[in-house]
Amino acid sequence: MSKLYFEDFRLNSAMTYGAYRVTADEIRSFASEYDPQPMHLDKAEARKSLLGGLAASGWQSCSILMRMIIDGFLHNAASMGAGDIDEVRWFKPLRPDDVLHVRHTIIGMRASQSKPDRGFVNFHFQLLNQNDEIVMEQRNGIMFERRSPATTETAGEPA
Amino acid sequence: MSKLYFEDFRLNSAMTYGAYRVTADEIRSFASEYDPQPMHLDKAEARKSLLGGLAASGWQSCSILMRMIIDGFLHNAASMGAGDIDEVRWFKPLRPDDVLHVRHTIIGMRASQSKPDRGFVNFHFQLLNQNDEIVMEQRNGIMFERRSPATTETAGEPA
Repeated sequence: MSKLYFEDFRLNSAMTYGAYRVTADEIRSFASEYDPQPMHLDKAEARKSLLGGLAASGWQSCSILMRMIIDGFLHNAASMGAGDIDEVRWFKPLRPDDVLHVRHTIIGMRASQSKPDRGFVNFHFQLLNQNDEIVMEQRNGIMFERRSPATTETAGEPA
Repeated sequence: MSKLYFEDFRLNSAMTYGAYRVTADEIRSFASEYDPQPMHLDKAEARKSLLGGLAASGWQSCSILMRMIIDGFLHNAASMGAGDIDEVRWFKPLRPDDVLHVRHTIIGMRASQSKPDRGFVNFHFQLLNQNDEIVMEQRNGIMFERRSPATTETAGEPA
């Protein structure tokens, strides 16, 4: 499969990928380092919380989505990184033994005005569980290299 | 120190806390699990990237901020969790041996209309390094229990 550049993405196109199985150990391990709140660490405490049972840190769901994006397509793309996240919404608790997949839609594309070697692609990511319930949604932009840098100043010349 | 409830937060008030020292091992360990891109894993590859050297995954900086928020005040608060993130902006690479602190400002407060036992506090978080440079900014809301639930329907009655 040839490497993906800015020109290879299409506005309004969608893609689905995964699976990723989450374990109770992974939830507790992440939480003990970065989000040591009882609902992410202890089953009995978690049952008494609003989450109603052990559930992953929201930041772990973001991190897992990142990993799934890389495995899904970004490992094979000329990515230049991301500069911001426009929105994250958590809808359902991420539970032990959930098996996740990702669905994304491209909601915006824009070539850089100042840097002819790159363009921005805006994604709407949905992280879904095995019942097709949305665990999290996220909107953000990723910067990609252009295969053919813009040539506005040399238009008409051979590439 | 007594536990913090919704009523204990003040609009426009600010707070500073930390420190948290980031290591190269922690950066590589997180990246190998959740963000295995060369600029987060390998010093030589990272030097060739836009980041100009080894730097943490943006999701690791979010996770570290979460930990610092818990250690800074949330461990002692009647938190009911967060439902969304309004914005994340990454400004500076997070480097090995950076020592981070957090500054937050309360930019919004609102008692729940439907549930008298809780209220929402909106924070603007800044994650800063040892040179007081902003590594990341984030805006999000956290829900807290009220010490004294609203009593709109029983106003005038003894508590």
